[in-house]
Amino acid sequence: MRPSHPRRSSTPAALKGDIAQLRSLEEAFAKAMNDKEIDAVMAIYAPGDSLFVFDVVGPPGVHFGWEEYREAFTQMFAAIEGPLRFSMSDLDLEVSGDVGYGRSLQRVSGVHVKGGKPFDYTVRVTDVYRKVDGKWLIVQEHISLPVERATFSPMLHF
Amino acid sequence: MRPSHPRRSSTPAALKGDIAQLRSLEEAFAKAMNDKEIDAVMAIYAPGDSLFVFDVVGPPGVHFGWEEYREAFTQMFAAIEGPLRFSMSDLDLEVSGDVGYGRSLQRVSGVHVKGGKPFDYTVRVTDVYRKVDGKWLIVQEHISLPVERATFSPMLHF
Repeated sequence: MRPSHPRRSSTPAALKGDIAQLRSLEEAFAKAMNDKEIDAVMAIYAPGDSLFVFDVVGPPGVHFGWEEYREAFTQMFAAIEGPLRFSMSDLDLEVSGDVGYGRSLQRVSGVHVKGGKPFDYTVRVTDVYRKVDGKWLIVQEHISLPVERATFSPMLHF
Repeated sequence: MRPSHPRRSSTPAALKGDIAQLRSLEEAFAKAMNDKEIDAVMAIYAPGDSLFVFDVVGPPGVHFGWEEYREAFTQMFAAIEGPLRFSMSDLDLEVSGDVGYGRSLQRVSGVHVKGGKPFDYTVRVTDVYRKVDGKWLIVQEHISLPVERATFSPMLHF
């Protein structure tokens, strides 16, 4: 992916601090994924019913609220035999006030419990963050396969 | 899709006004799509290089900047024979300060120029909006197929 547009030089220090906090949040997420630590993964998502996710894994591929998403991660971790390898690239973040938003490519690989076959895929992720009581959390997420790797029906090729 | 969490009753009037403006923006987008009016479509996207889109149509399925996205819409419109039918559902919007974010399902149908075959598909859309000089525009967009309708490789079924 090409580099994003240059960060504006007028970025205030406070804004840089918020972006650094979001970057730390994503680093914590990456560590939690590699550790297969469900509690640490879910600590970066907003609690309650407001969390919303368009997921790549499904059906149904959509999650309403923290509890539903926790269940999805639990099932995913259980379906992976042994270690999970996770890495993130092309992370780009923006913040204004108490809202942040960003995008990244996220790669996951490992071995399926079912069939014992290895897998390795990269998904596109959009996240929206809110700062509540000084703490940033993900409130909305959208995960999808890159077009190059998905097998779309011919109707989608314009 | 299930209805979203109830809007908080404490929502200030100004916030309701902003959400109403975002809803109008999306209604203008729907009209522009049905009219196949490229200029009206692109009027709701932030000009310049900062616009970023994970698209469902590709490859490459990613657009950097307003000009690239305009070219993608131009190609899409040219590939549709005659009228395009567009509708939006499950629109849910949130605003804080000068940032808004939302999600929806968007259905597009018509007939392909190539082969003359009809198509009808629904995509999942996440949008991030910024208010600049009193005007809301989309600054980031993520479009993907619902999991139910895509044909994923078996590795994605956890």
